[in-house]
Amino acid sequence: MTNASITVLGLGAMGSAITARLRETGYDTTVWNRTAAKTEPHVEAGSRAAPTVAEAIKTGDFVLVVLLDHASVREQLEPVADALKEKVVINLTTTTPNESRATAAWAAEHGIAYLDGAIMAVPEMIGGPGSRLLYSGDENAYAIARTILETLGTADYEGTDAGLASLKDMALLSAMDLMFTGYVQAIAMMRTVGVSAYDTAEEVQAWLGAMLPHGRGLAEIIDGRTYETGGQSADFTRAAQASMITASREQGIRADLLEPHLKLLNELAATGRGGKDWLAIIELLTIK
Amino acid sequence: MTNASITVLGLGAMGSAITARLRETGYDTTVWNRTAAKTEPHVEAGSRAAPTVAEAIKTGDFVLVVLLDHASVREQLEPVADALKEKVVINLTTTTPNESRATAAWAAEHGIAYLDGAIMAVPEMIGGPGSRLLYSGDENAYAIARTILETLGTADYEGTDAGLASLKDMALLSAMDLMFTGYVQAIAMMRTVGVSAYDTAEEVQAWLGAMLPHGRGLAEIIDGRTYETGGQSADFTRAAQASMITASREQGIRADLLEPHLKLLNELAATGRGGKDWLAIIELLTIK
Repeated sequence: MTNASITVLGLGAMGSAITARLRETGYDTTVWNRTAAKTEPHVEAGSRAAPTVAEAIKTGDFVLVVLLDHASVREQLEPVADALKEKVVINLTTTTPNESRATAAWAAEHGIAYLDGAIMAVPEMIGGPGSRLLYSGDENAYAIARTILETLGTADYEGTDAGLASLKDMALLSAMDLMFTGYVQAIAMMRTVGVSAYDTAEEVQAWLGAMLPHGRGLAEIIDGRTYETGGQSADFTRAAQASMITASREQGIRADLLEPHLKLLNELAATGRGGKDWLAIIELLTIK
Repeated sequence: MTNASITVLGLGAMGSAITARLRETGYDTTVWNRTAAKTEPHVEAGSRAAPTVAEAIKTGDFVLVVLLDHASVREQLEPVADALKEKVVINLTTTTPNESRATAAWAAEHGIAYLDGAIMAVPEMIGGPGSRLLYSGDENAYAIARTILETLGTADYEGTDAGLASLKDMALLSAMDLMFTGYVQAIAMMRTVGVSAYDTAEEVQAWLGAMLPHGRGLAEIIDGRTYETGGQSADFTRAAQASMITASREQGIRADLLEPHLKLLNELAATGRGGKDWLAIIELLTIK
């Protein structure tokens, strides 16, 4: 498989990093990008450039799609559906789970082997030790492409539901996003007394690093739904949250980022569940 | 100082852990609690119990206050202000920075040596290796009490502004709270496809652990206010946030916890700053 031909559609930062990695690993690569100028450094480095998507996929056994969004993916792939029948299409574009599922259904309709992927790394990490990619959809396509995919980073196959890779991606990105807004909130509060963002970030990193393992204990309460006998009550947490919000505002910092948690805790209290573990908010989040 | 007498007011989980640690370290301890029954195990273990706050502080050179909230602190301390003049009062009750400052001002008015503290640990950690306590206020009181305080955990003196310990506490708790709501959001999303909370927590822990060190890079952008040349733009982040919110809702999970970040990014975009680094939201948070 090391002499497989791979077409990469899309040369943003991520598509470029993937193309470079595949080329350096010894694969024959063909690239296409809406703005052709971005293909130049890749051609100089040994890739082939194609002027159209239809041309680009001719030379590839595998088609890696790394476009802006779901709409771009469908816009580029639909006109070449017939030609994709002999290929394995691996869509690494960031999409929602339902968008992944919709593209998988479209691919199935056209007899195209389709794998959906999500990249848990920034472009600089591709091919390096910390890089991890999630895949879901056609299990056979995964088996065929696996050697290629493993050159990009650790490859994890999540299941046949094509939406699973995107879903886990979005879930982990949500957790990361909330963590980083936590940095911003703490930095904003400490800036008011002249503490640099860097110094606060160091404090936050040490503190969160120490607190991270407690996530498992929280998970056990959620899995067991032991909200009666769990840890910290919603009422206690409401008081703590209210203190944080007050502290933030006292220092002249908006508490927008902290408010939704308190609102959810207040919903618990309003429905007579203030004495339960605060983690019972997860049951409020689940609407179906 | 190892034969100093210490009075502990309040025997909640934290007050109890502190009393036990002080007693085990060899200090003479007197306890008071609103509900007297909670003093019993401490008396059995060798502490002295007092029926009133006035009695309790008679035997202590140091008075550690670990009550429910700011109002309880003032309610218990105000009637005994005169008797506290010869003591060092260390208030470990969770309060906002301005509440700490108000109690410090009241103490100064009455000639009471006052130190405000914040506990960056759960009760089980007190006296152990991961326990850390922050102090601010009367520097001389800190110097006198330091040996005692160090038996509870690493002791950090933050400055003469009595609100500093509370402020850092609230800032770090805010960051932790947002991180843990991130666990909850990710777990809620993954539960919809049958993944246990525990399995998701393991994934989140590994992922956040890998992402934690990036906080420093974010801090450098904020310190330098290099929002023009920084990392990820507000517009890119808006699209990513919108995808997370859509993914969450597609799976039947409310996205309340994710919304404020997107709202702040939209505020940036609405004021022509969509092309700037997303971290510029911190400037929107600062209202004075």
